[in-house]
Amino acid sequence: MKKIINDPSNVVSDMIQGIVLAHPNYVRKSDNGNILVRKDAPVEGKVGLVSGGGSGHEPSHGGFVGYGMLDAAVCGEVFTSPTPDQVYEAIKEVNSGNGVLLIIKNYTGDVMNFEMAKEMAEMDGIEVDYVVVNDDVAVENSLYTAGRRGIAGTVFVHKIAGAKATQGATLKQVKEVANKVIKNVRSMGMALSPCIVPAAGKPNFTLEENEIEIGMGIHGEPGTHKEEISSANDITTHLIDKILADVEIAEDEEVAVMVNGLGSTPLMELYIANKTVNEILTNKGIKIYNTFVGEYMTSLEMAGYSVSILKLDDELKELLDAKADTLGLKIL
Amino acid sequence: MKKIINDPSNVVSDMIQGIVLAHPNYVRKSDNGNILVRKDAPVEGKVGLVSGGGSGHEPSHGGFVGYGMLDAAVCGEVFTSPTPDQVYEAIKEVNSGNGVLLIIKNYTGDVMNFEMAKEMAEMDGIEVDYVVVNDDVAVENSLYTAGRRGIAGTVFVHKIAGAKATQGATLKQVKEVANKVIKNVRSMGMALSPCIVPAAGKPNFTLEENEIEIGMGIHGEPGTHKEEISSANDITTHLIDKILADVEIAEDEEVAVMVNGLGSTPLMELYIANKTVNEILTNKGIKIYNTFVGEYMTSLEMAGYSVSILKLDDELKELLDAKADTLGLKIL
Repeated sequence: MKKIINDPSNVVSDMIQGIVLAHPNYVRKSDNGNILVRKDAPVEGKVGLVSGGGSGHEPSHGGFVGYGMLDAAVCGEVFTSPTPDQVYEAIKEVNSGNGVLLIIKNYTGDVMNFEMAKEMAEMDGIEVDYVVVNDDVAVENSLYTAGRRGIAGTVFVHKIAGAKATQGATLKQVKEVANKVIKNVRSMGMALSPCIVPAAGKPNFTLEENEIEIGMGIHGEPGTHKEEISSANDITTHLIDKILADVEIAEDEEVAVMVNGLGSTPLMELYIANKTVNEILTNKGIKIYNTFVGEYMTSLEMAGYSVSILKLDDELKELLDAKADTLGLKIL
Repeated sequence: MKKIINDPSNVVSDMIQGIVLAHPNYVRKSDNGNILVRKDAPVEGKVGLVSGGGSGHEPSHGGFVGYGMLDAAVCGEVFTSPTPDQVYEAIKEVNSGNGVLLIIKNYTGDVMNFEMAKEMAEMDGIEVDYVVVNDDVAVENSLYTAGRRGIAGTVFVHKIAGAKATQGATLKQVKEVANKVIKNVRSMGMALSPCIVPAAGKPNFTLEENEIEIGMGIHGEPGTHKEEISSANDITTHLIDKILADVEIAEDEEVAVMVNGLGSTPLMELYIANKTVNEILTNKGIKIYNTFVGEYMTSLEMAGYSVSILKLDDELKELLDAKADTLGLKIL
């Protein structure tokens, strides 16, 4: 295992220290655990937004803590749900008395632990609610998941719910818009190669020399099938076909697109894939309102990418365009 | 070779199309070649800034085209200097009559071809000048280079010269501040694994199972030596020692730090390295004014990272903080 680390058992705390030392104007570490908290949280009068999950998906979720997006990100061990205690501490850090919304990716451990934290916080009199993101159309049920998995589309939930909360909306309103995003977003990914979880020290799955996996999850969970590698055009067309089979988008409707790198796929290749995404949607008469290309939700050094498509309306467009100032996403 | 591409011979043009389709509000493609041009160039009254080089280093350089940074980036074939004609076309695209500054990384082919383009543009009556960035302290002379190589520190030149030009400075003033950055910036990198240039189809160098290369260039040029992998602390300490042996930074002086990923190194590991950078500099009494962690100048999917340190004064701090709105770097 070749990695730029010190002790495999300290990678998450070393990373958090490295983040806080780099960006003290954005984030601080909670005194009560591995939680990245917006520097000025709790923000007076604003609903608090908490997300998180296992580490190893950077910039998710700590990179999206800041103005216009999240108030805290709970950092579990690599590919491991954070504990209920950790989530509970995060809720307390961001609660300004206006309630806290938890944005959970649909993995059984995450859902269970975030729900338990909600109950703990409610016993303290804090109003807490949550949404569960399940944008991955690849497979129903999976290793670690009942139902669909939550993947890169979650970042759209952070952005749009964050903008709504920043406008001073109530917890109910923020939850409603988060659920609108969840209803309108679909994603699917593929992998060219595995990654190595530091504590395990070996690749989390294997692929043959010319083999790729379609529909792979962000922890290396099996996808729909393996196949021989083909072209960027063919692979991307397959991903989009699966997405569009699952969500109705009429001609002239507007969408946001995210082409997300899983860790070691060069930006060059993500843009080559985006050319195909753009051509397919344009040929169908679907209007692309804006496009995000880069690393938003990774799987350490896994090679591969996912495509997410979010169907927009006027409210979602306005919230997507609103100012954001975080390490992983800045909108001027 | 597993890559998300169509035809290896079209990767650069496919990428450029993918970029322009994704970000039409930022960049357009020149009608006269593989050049990414700021959408609103030439900008009235402003010195034009042109950089570029071989492709495969994304987001360098096209990702730094936009408000407050570059006006155009010339995109050569992968790891190959752009032609004089290409650079000449870029100069014409950005010239508003106030002169054009070329920011060249020190590779023999780049320097030769950018200089030739300067002469071609001067015959058209365009005032052109240039600076050469040679921030890599690893080795004197190298494959492709007489003198030191230019690597990730170049992005500081783009940022600061771009801010100066945006303020309405003259060509002479923009060149002066670019040269101040070049005088004050030092970098050094290391690699854990090679990358595959699409047209070659095989790795550009080899390393043993537990071997890393110290001082590796961004095209896989040899560094100072190979060694067995050690800890993030030890490797980072070595890089900083080499940098600080080459530039005098007194106690209480301020610096900007860049921890730059070469392509497949997870953000987690870059932040772990940054923890060490921060500790070493802080222990020496050097003040870190700000820190950039991420992928700024990559080598396709090479694994590894570089550290850059830029010594600051009041002018450089103000220009570094100035607003920028590009795909690869946004400062609000």
